[in-house]
Amino acid sequence: MTTRYRIALIPGDGIGAEVLPPACAVLDAVGKRHGLTFTYDSFDWSCERYAAEGAMMPADGLDRIRHHDAVLLGAVGWPGVPDHVSLWGLLIPIRRQFRQYVNLRPIKVLEGVPSPLAKATSDVDFVVVRENVEGEYSEIGGRLGRGFPDEMAIQQSVFTRPGVERILDYAFTTAQRRSGDVVSATKSNGIIHTMPFWDELVKEAGDRFPDVTWRQEHIDALVAKVVLDPSRFDVIVGSNLFGDILSDLAAAVAGSIGIAPAANLNPERDHPSMFEPVHGSAPDIAGQGVANPLGAIWSASMMLDHLGHPEAGAEVLDSFASVLATTDVRTRDLGGTAGTKDFTNLVLEGIAG
Amino acid sequence: MTTRYRIALIPGDGIGAEVLPPACAVLDAVGKRHGLTFTYDSFDWSCERYAAEGAMMPADGLDRIRHHDAVLLGAVGWPGVPDHVSLWGLLIPIRRQFRQYVNLRPIKVLEGVPSPLAKATSDVDFVVVRENVEGEYSEIGGRLGRGFPDEMAIQQSVFTRPGVERILDYAFTTAQRRSGDVVSATKSNGIIHTMPFWDELVKEAGDRFPDVTWRQEHIDALVAKVVLDPSRFDVIVGSNLFGDILSDLAAAVAGSIGIAPAANLNPERDHPSMFEPVHGSAPDIAGQGVANPLGAIWSASMMLDHLGHPEAGAEVLDSFASVLATTDVRTRDLGGTAGTKDFTNLVLEGIAG
Ligand SMILES: CC(C)[C@H](C(=O)O)[C@@H](O)C(=O)O
Ligand SMILES: CC(C)[C@H](C(=O)O)[C@@H](O)C(=O)O
Repeated sequence: MTTRYRIALIPGDGIGAEVLPPACAVLDAVGKRHGLTFTYDSFDWSCERYAAEGAMMPADGLDRIRHHDAVLLGAVGWPGVPDHVSLWGLLIPIRRQFRQYVNLRPIKVLEGVPSPLAKATSDVDFVVVRENVEGEYSEIGGRLGRGFPDEMAIQQSVFTRPGVERILDYAFTTAQRRSGDVVSATKSNGIIHTMPFWDELVKEAGDRFPDVTWRQEHIDALVAKVVLDPSRFDVIVGSNLFGDILSDLAAAVAGSIGIAPAANLNPERDHPSMFEPVHGSAPDIAGQGVANPLGAIWSASMMLDHLGHPEAGAEVLDSFASVLATTDVRTRDLGGTAGTKDFTNLVLEGIAG
Repeated sequence: MTTRYRIALIPGDGIGAEVLPPACAVLDAVGKRHGLTFTYDSFDWSCERYAAEGAMMPADGLDRIRHHDAVLLGAVGWPGVPDHVSLWGLLIPIRRQFRQYVNLRPIKVLEGVPSPLAKATSDVDFVVVRENVEGEYSEIGGRLGRGFPDEMAIQQSVFTRPGVERILDYAFTTAQRRSGDVVSATKSNGIIHTMPFWDELVKEAGDRFPDVTWRQEHIDALVAKVVLDPSRFDVIVGSNLFGDILSDLAAAVAGSIGIAPAANLNPERDHPSMFEPVHGSAPDIAGQGVANPLGAIWSASMMLDHLGHPEAGAEVLDSFASVLATTDVRTRDLGGTAGTKDFTNLVLEGIAG
């Protein structure tokens, strides 16, 4: 019996095009062992396309990928195209229109990837559950008096009860399947309208999940604790902005943001979810075949989890973890000299063997 | 010749009352050597007062300290009083009404205070220049449909050209006196109205200060770099929220947020500036005489700088740095058993001797 999946590939910019083929090769290899077949449709939506045609993707772009089973994204962004153009023309609309309201980022210290922290951190293993479609990232706002001495810019943050409740439910449910502890990132001492509201809903969620322990921490104190004692965390839940900051910080604490994966999840599965490495398009090394494919491969493993094949996902994770633990083959970002293909081949061997 | 200063003391809550006397003792000691006399007026504004009288400070509170030369604050906040009540009833109004638009936080790795980072970090020495009166901390916003399923909360961030220009000028001027490099914290890829505006004004400031190098980093990437390579920074400038997050993170990287100082500066000197340790009121250890007075003492040293006595400020810094470097007398937060007074006495001996 074979299960077939149609995957939309959006390589995007720079090294995006170099890290997706390894991810697909890994999917094919592990798929073979588990009766899964993947068909890939590739879309050239990118800053290059923007330069040529004035838009990151075609007007009906979302419709073209709406019925795929998942989206794999490489990286978006290129010098010369302002980030708020490239990202709000591609990544953000996909997250929003497909209701991918969970951004899930696992943080694990892998053997063979040194952490910048002095104390042994091999027991660091938590997830950041980030709200992904509302909050501080809002289209509402603008500029007044452009160029004049009294010019100003305003920006609205918007938090809705349904929007916050669903991300909290996801976080608390995730904790139930893990060690049962949630830390909520807040800043209700400084951001006095939206954050006290967030805190109230966290308290309500705590009441709904009596088997989960929880507490809240102000974001300033929390970033300090992530550095001073990262092994104490199980699930951290945060708003769009706080989740973004915490997940990059935590990835650095685990050794490298170059290998971190992310899943943009639509838990209701009425739209495709999207999987993307956390790293950017890396113009400085693009086209040289030296990019680290691990972020993309790890993201593909999260895609397998989401599609209902956690054993296949775990095999991918085990395979790259064992390459890191048992060899010194490393791409440049991790201090090695291996190319993208060298590393990928070892991961593929691990899966086959 | 004697120069006299009148200082308003606001011990506030918890250990606030335990760390200000050491700071005053140090000021008196170093003042003696430099012909400076300090008179202290103490104000009982606190959560205790709030519990008794329904307000953190009297209605004419600000007028009572308006003509002092500086304010020394201990700590504000106590369980049972929501932070947004205690802080917005005391700390925030002082910052805003006295136009203390610069929040300055020096980050130094001191010999004898171990950093959580593995790599030697003794060359870490930078300042975070934080915008302190506008931005994300705004009274504008509120709640709609309280308790209903469609409830929402909104919050406006407000950035004005004069507000951003003056903090950037302060940051670039500070860099001129240091190593001449500014990093601006942004998030213009996600916060698409206010942050692109901030970036434009940073570029303009860069043009006004051709002798200073500068670049911008998204806050998520920046927190990672503060952990991975903190010695590369000279001046980091950020909005109210980003500056808050970065300065606590950087203090943790330097070993402890328990010893970090902060200055809330009114650079025009038309109102008093305020100096406060970064730590909170620490209800768990309050009243036991074991609080670390270093944050308050270091803040007092920043007050001396601001009042125009940098040699006196430097003597204070040298004195506590040498206690840390040459003895193992430490308060509990730094792993020792010394009390507040034990540590203070050593600092005082250093100044006298
Ligand atoms: C207490 C709180 C409002 C405050 C802030 O965020 O400004 C604190 O964290 C600080 O940095 O002084
Ligand atoms: C690219 C940017 C808009 C984005 C974000 O902040 O969401 C990125 O940092 C991420 O985390 O995916």
